Amino acid sequence: MKHLLTTAELSVEEMNDILEEAQKFAEGGSWQPKKQTFVANLFFESSTRTKSSFYMAERKLGLDVIPFETSTSSVQKGETLYDTVRTLESIGLDAVVIRHQDDQYFDELVGKINIPILNAGDGCGNHPTQSLLDLFTIKSEFGGFSGLKVAIIGDLRHSRVARSNADALKRLGAEVVFSGPEEWFDEDLLKYGLYEEVDEAMQTADVVMLLRIQHERHGVGATNSPEQYHREYGLTIERERRMKRGSIIMHPAPVNRGVEIADCLVECERSRIFKQMENGVYARMAVLTRALENIRGGNKYVIANQKWPVAY
Amino acid sequence: MKHLLTTAELSVEEMNDILEEAQKFAEGGSWQPKKQTFVANLFFESSTRTKSSFYMAERKLGLDVIPFETSTSSVQKGETLYDTVRTLESIGLDAVVIRHQDDQYFDELVGKINIPILNAGDGCGNHPTQSLLDLFTIKSEFGGFSGLKVAIIGDLRHSRVARSNADALKRLGAEVVFSGPEEWFDEDLLKYGLYEEVDEAMQTADVVMLLRIQHERHGVGATNSPEQYHREYGLTIERERRMKRGSIIMHPAPVNRGVEIADCLVECERSRIFKQMENGVYARMAVLTRALENIRGGNKYVIANQKWPVAY
Amino acid sequence: MKHLLTTAELSVEEMNDILEEAQKFAEGGSWQPKKQTFVANLFFESSTRTKSSFYMAERKLGLDVIPFETSTSSVQKGETLYDTVRTLESIGLDAVVIRHQDDQYFDELVGKINIPILNAGDGCGNHPTQSLLDLFTIKSEFGGFSGLKVAIIGDLRHSRVARSNADALKRLGAEVVFSGPEEWFDEDLLKYGLYEEVDEAMQTADVVMLLRIQHERHGVGATNSPEQYHREYGLTIERERRMKRGSIIMHPAPVNRGVEIADCLVECERSRIFKQMENGVYARMAVLTRALENIRGGNKYVIANQKWPVAY
Repeated sequence: MKHLLTTAELSVEEMNDILEEAQKFAEGGSWQPKKQTFVANLFFESSTRTKSSFYMAERKLGLDVIPFETSTSSVQKGETLYDTVRTLESIGLDAVVIRHQDDQYFDELVGKINIPILNAGDGCGNHPTQSLLDLFTIKSEFGGFSGLKVAIIGDLRHSRVARSNADALKRLGAEVVFSGPEEWFDEDLLKYGLYEEVDEAMQTADVVMLLRIQHERHGVGATNSPEQYHREYGLTIERERRMKRGSIIMHPAPVNRGVEIADCLVECERSRIFKQMENGVYARMAVLTRALENIRGGNKYVIANQKWPVAY
Repeated sequence: MKHLLTTAELSVEEMNDILEEAQKFAEGGSWQPKKQTFVANLFFESSTRTKSSFYMAERKLGLDVIPFETSTSSVQKGETLYDTVRTLESIGLDAVVIRHQDDQYFDELVGKINIPILNAGDGCGNHPTQSLLDLFTIKSEFGGFSGLKVAIIGDLRHSRVARSNADALKRLGAEVVFSGPEEWFDEDLLKYGLYEEVDEAMQTADVVMLLRIQHERHGVGATNSPEQYHREYGLTIERERRMKRGSIIMHPAPVNRGVEIADCLVECERSRIFKQMENGVYARMAVLTRALENIRGGNKYVIANQKWPVAY
Repeated sequence: MKHLLTTAELSVEEMNDILEEAQKFAEGGSWQPKKQTFVANLFFESSTRTKSSFYMAERKLGLDVIPFETSTSSVQKGETLYDTVRTLESIGLDAVVIRHQDDQYFDELVGKINIPILNAGDGCGNHPTQSLLDLFTIKSEFGGFSGLKVAIIGDLRHSRVARSNADALKRLGAEVVFSGPEEWFDEDLLKYGLYEEVDEAMQTADVVMLLRIQHERHGVGATNSPEQYHREYGLTIERERRMKRGSIIMHPAPVNRGVEIADCLVECERSRIFKQMENGVYARMAVLTRALENIRGGNKYVIANQKWPVAY
């Protein structure tokens, strides 16, 4: 049984294992549980994209998904997260996927819950499956990380993945730079990479990784107009023309079209934005199988290039 | 791959094909996908009845249904419908069923999305699966449409199916008349049939097709009392007694008991109201298999009179 | 076809049959429908715990669960419960599980609906699967009921299970006593057992069955402070120490930690609180198979000690 809580806790070897496993699924590899296996997706913050992606991954693996609506749950009656998860463990769940508004919500669960927890986002903290799908997209494109320059651009302050992606990319051998409004750049990011002016960053990076602007979280200021943001820090048509040959564009979505990126570039040749979503399913299949390995007798086996489980 | 957007776009031949397919399912015919196949039901307007019916149809066909809650989706963050559907296509959906409050919402999707779209209702526009289940109910009853008189009675102004049913019925060879409050009769309906006084219509029609009164959409006026509506335009016990021998009663439901129809007639011998609901599942199975035919290698095959898929 | 509406309607023999069936499931027994079988969970009052438990039971039995969201259903448009359930029957459901805020909501359905109804709670009335899982937990522990003393303690006035548990336990041969705030003790409970002072009850019972305090339903008064309640009527650390050897603690959950029971006792050795949740799945599997027996050709068969259906 293995939790997936943060990317920071994953060794380089573990990350590579997960990416390899994801690759097998991308190539049509199949997996099936040895016995009926139950999971639930507990999304205390809404996120249809991530939730749908997890659901797809779970169903492709032949897992049984027990619906859990946080809006009507006993959590509303004041039940602790521990009691909720312990209840789900009691009724027979084999794993839980959790998104929660509190940073490190999992601290109150780890060591007390006997089923794996897959973190689908905690507060402003971590979002490891988003990081892993980003890494997988880069690896699929370039074969590896060594020698690559990745520019992480935009809302560095509110992003759940800027830090964890930077940390993982650096450990995997890539060079990281940050860009966007300078006031959103924190000094503690210096341990992962330098701040670079946006035109420079976009022209020299192999990967232009745009972050979503969280309009709702910013006050009025220099960057309060979407048009101005686009002009100053966005991926405009002009900036795309000057991008390095062979470089790619990434964005975690949903995209603010015309803000972080020009509307017409969302599906341009360099863009991997919708490819990232596809890859998200493979990355989640990889972490789910990793979590369920050797749990309650459910040994895993992957059958590459076989798209349909023999029986489920 | 075939969308289902409106009944107007269906030729008479196509309608007949769908009705025949529905008939096979009504007789216990079975279908199964060649590989795991994913669909989602995107209901931006609520409709448990239609949604449950689609869900039943999907599960009877052995499809995997990915839950999608519009209330918590990124559409709430301003994401376009296109981006939402494109995302679902990216994560591997094979078809989407959509109900949306905007007329012709599908115009921004067709030609850009590579998976079939099944329209489960657009604004005040179309509701093709409701039309098809109505047609199927009539055909099951009378064997065909030629020579039949169908009276469409009630809230002609706000109904999503009055126009499309009238159009389809006329093309299939039936005679259509309209009745109900005359102020709700629009001149453009004349191309399908004449307005007829309610007693006349109910006494001479083979099919009395009642429409639901959308109380919430009407102001105060001559028809503002449910009792008055029932007396003047509803199917009362007296009117039912004078109906033609062998004629049937239809209503799309939910019924306002005692308004469009007397409470005790809802399940009377002539009523096909609950039969329509049953037929809705068969009609939706037919359009789903039609949409998924030859898609991504998932050729269809129907096994008549076998109620349980060999494996799924 | 057999409804499950109240425990009062179950004979001692029927209760024993259900408990035996639950025991087979607890031991890993398996069941499968002969054909694809559809159920829906209609929860007009929210209850994630009971709903999740039913869902688990249904999926473990290989049933197909059709989602039904009461918040968006036509019930909101004024549709009667009868029309809603009749619709679900029409589209092919084989059974429905219902929780509803009205006492005896099922009176308007029984005799008119041709599929089994499983009551998951009606108003302040009944909650038979909670009772059955409580009975099953006691029987698993002690092998039977004869000679046992069960103390039901707490919010006797608002509990859905106090009366029905007391009735069932008495008929099965146990002695029942009640405790907690005396003003919540109604004279009609005397037919099941006497009121006993809380220290006495906790020291002499084989089963201390705590009831959840429904804070929201009580006005200000002697018992308006949770701390005071705990001190006067709760299972404190001191009271637990004086409990009878071999006795157990039960609570239907969610627990108000520190009110009905000291926080640290929730998972103490005597506590069967999370075990009850596990047992809830087995009890619900038993009543579901009982309801679906001989329905539409779906004969049941239980295969003890085989954890995974041969095919489903």
